[in-house]
Amino acid sequence: GRGHRVTDPALTRALAGREALIARLADLIACPSVSVEPGAEAGMEAARTQFEGFLAGAGFANIRRLQGGGHPAIAAEWMGADGTPTLLVYGHYDVQPADPLDQWTTAPFEAAVRDGRIYGRGAADDKGPLLVALSALAAVLAEDGRLPVNIRILIEGEEELGSRTLEQILHLHKAQLACDAVLSADGARWRADLPTLNMATRGIGTLEFSVRTAAKDLHSGRYGGVVPNALHVLSGMLAALHDGDGRITIPGFYEGLADPAPELRAELAAIPFDAADWLAETGAEPIGEAGFTTLERLWLRPCLDVNGVTGGYAGPGSKTVIPAEAHAKLSLRLVHGQDPDRIRQALIEHLHRLSPPCATLSVTADSAWTAATEVPRDHPLLAAARKALLRTTGQNPVLVRIGASLPICDIVRRVLGCDVVMFSFATADENFHAPDEFFRLSAIDEGLAAWIALLRELETGQGLAGQ
Amino acid sequence: GRGHRVTDPALTRALAGREALIARLADLIACPSVSVEPGAEAGMEAARTQFEGFLAGAGFANIRRLQGGGHPAIAAEWMGADGTPTLLVYGHYDVQPADPLDQWTTAPFEAAVRDGRIYGRGAADDKGPLLVALSALAAVLAEDGRLPVNIRILIEGEEELGSRTLEQILHLHKAQLACDAVLSADGARWRADLPTLNMATRGIGTLEFSVRTAAKDLHSGRYGGVVPNALHVLSGMLAALHDGDGRITIPGFYEGLADPAPELRAELAAIPFDAADWLAETGAEPIGEAGFTTLERLWLRPCLDVNGVTGGYAGPGSKTVIPAEAHAKLSLRLVHGQDPDRIRQALIEHLHRLSPPCATLSVTADSAWTAATEVPRDHPLLAAARKALLRTTGQNPVLVRIGASLPICDIVRRVLGCDVVMFSFATADENFHAPDEFFRLSAIDEGLAAWIALLRELETGQGLAGQ
Repeated sequence: GRGHRVTDPALTRALAGREALIARLADLIACPSVSVEPGAEAGMEAARTQFEGFLAGAGFANIRRLQGGGHPAIAAEWMGADGTPTLLVYGHYDVQPADPLDQWTTAPFEAAVRDGRIYGRGAADDKGPLLVALSALAAVLAEDGRLPVNIRILIEGEEELGSRTLEQILHLHKAQLACDAVLSADGARWRADLPTLNMATRGIGTLEFSVRTAAKDLHSGRYGGVVPNALHVLSGMLAALHDGDGRITIPGFYEGLADPAPELRAELAAIPFDAADWLAETGAEPIGEAGFTTLERLWLRPCLDVNGVTGGYAGPGSKTVIPAEAHAKLSLRLVHGQDPDRIRQALIEHLHRLSPPCATLSVTADSAWTAATEVPRDHPLLAAARKALLRTTGQNPVLVRIGASLPICDIVRRVLGCDVVMFSFATADENFHAPDEFFRLSAIDEGLAAWIALLRELETGQGLAGQ
Repeated sequence: GRGHRVTDPALTRALAGREALIARLADLIACPSVSVEPGAEAGMEAARTQFEGFLAGAGFANIRRLQGGGHPAIAAEWMGADGTPTLLVYGHYDVQPADPLDQWTTAPFEAAVRDGRIYGRGAADDKGPLLVALSALAAVLAEDGRLPVNIRILIEGEEELGSRTLEQILHLHKAQLACDAVLSADGARWRADLPTLNMATRGIGTLEFSVRTAAKDLHSGRYGGVVPNALHVLSGMLAALHDGDGRITIPGFYEGLADPAPELRAELAAIPFDAADWLAETGAEPIGEAGFTTLERLWLRPCLDVNGVTGGYAGPGSKTVIPAEAHAKLSLRLVHGQDPDRIRQALIEHLHRLSPPCATLSVTADSAWTAATEVPRDHPLLAAARKALLRTTGQNPVLVRIGASLPICDIVRRVLGCDVVMFSFATADENFHAPDEFFRLSAIDEGLAAWIALLRELETGQGLAGQ
């Protein structure tokens, strides 16, 4: 097939547009599309307009905005491949805030190329990888006058807000987004030196709660020893969330979680990964559930973290206050076999049980909880992605998982009923969400080649839906 | 003696100066002598100048400033009563910050008289009560041409900073401050409706510490389940500071603390005090050490409070961070029989024992620790104060204690070797350290009468030093 040509004319075309792509990425970085900031509407609109202009120029039709109650998503499609499956290509146009500004070497919203990297907020997450994907599609469409399968595009505007209205957008526009599989230009390659494909994510749930022990803060000189202290109550509750072996004490939390199959353990053990080296970078002593390797703990086992505590006096020096209220933020990573709703409910009941009679517990925030997801090992899109990476890198990609959670995977599974394959050419070390975010310029070439190779794999006319 | 005159000419004179006293207090309130604020030097200097002017006008000599490394104290004396003991009268010219400004009914540094009260920062703590004391001394000196005993005055400028340089001031100027007893115009009457004398304070110690579990905050998607969390460590440590019965777990903490004697228990039980009513105001469920009444817990038993915790993400929404560091501020109230240095050392050792191997513990701040103090029941100055209150109120004052800590009591005991009797006419409900601080105008009359009556008691020529 055409996919086996050593030099694909579409790739030649795409690579010839490399400088234009970099210039376009610089223009996109110049749009401060910080979805979390109420005043960022101008930046959001500028980013939308640029992506829409690109899609129109590339020949996509039905370019429109999908409303879900928050920042709109951009949709577009090329549906000219009658009788073939439909692939939905996903990315997002919003970016993280740039704080702390003083830690950037160059201004976050002015792209700067240094040492083979393009720096700027959103360079890697997700404007760069998304532009690579769209440019690959555009090059094939320009070269061939068609695409191998029907393509729908969805560019979200609230990924950095936890995709808070994505589910609503998919529900409201389900027919216009119907597809057999989703290929995401978001996410990150695990490592720069090893071709990998991510086939699973952990689920996530977050919850904030407060305990109150008095109507107002009290002075320990007047009340010390006779009234409860909200920070004592909170500390006791938080400490009780793990037992002495570090296991989570929520009743039923581990129910239904079998030990990984020997084949899976062997597969993970074969991944070239030095846990001790990797952990040494953190400066942390390794901990974890007994009986599991580091990768098993990260990818196959759930965890619970206290992400923040506030209570009492936080200023300089001492203040002999007995805090009346204290707050905690928790997050949990869930794995296959754990039902988010059931875990969420069990956690809330557990907190109520741990809260002593002298305290009033309030759950003050509670995000949408999402389940772990896993792309079936024999999914045709995953197979196409593996072949594309083998062809363009000369190496068989390693199947990996991530300990993180991608709301889109669970939402797409539930609403559109299909799987999401991650195919981003950002790399995990590119300072996502941090100062000096960058995108490797080499990833542009690698990404264009891989996306075009993957599209060629789809020309074989196989189905795209997983079992 | 002259003390038994129904109308003391000195009191008549003092009461005739009541309006002048209120005007002077308003002038003092207008000096923003907020010792904690680096920019408050002008306000500090203005307050010092006013007190010095008053002392000079009243006939005190050797008016000078005593340096101890921070804001200076003001000293003065009248040493004309040869062969009599020396009484040191104490107060402070510094005040708390006025924040939050928007919660004041009228401006904090502009005195306002409403409903028999004078409002303003420092009105009750301690400018009003100190001015009452000095005015009483001035009236007796003006009326009689002498005072019944030698009087030294010490007006501190760092009381609101925990008297951080008071010990140094007393050490450096020990001879100039030598005295047989200290009578303090600082503090507060327990209640407005019951004449009381405070004979004991709890000691205090504060300590801040941090635990660190990694070189930097880590993302729970990348590291959740394989690295320790500083907030888990901190919560566990804080929870372990009390046992299931609410007793403090520091080894040796309760060593040497005998149960109160039956006579003392009976004395406390006889104090008209409804613990349930008093606690109901706080909105807190009563807690406390088994086997003790509320007043016993407050006055005779030690306690430990966590005053503040910080760690991880404190902003809106969730952030799936694994905090690398967490901080806690602790304070302890100590009682008679507990050696502050020993308890401090035991606490630090205990924290090190509670800190798991995956964490690094740092004690980041550690205030001067002070012991509990108690004025001997038969102290002649306490006896004089009791008689003065009986004479001026018609009621035998109730001997009370406070659960709070007054650094001066312990420092004077250690450096000058004598006791401090509290004789303030502020009342505990007057919004010390809070918006709308006020001082009852009625306390001016009551305070002038009581201070003059107490001076008359000293004319009997008894000694002033406790045993």
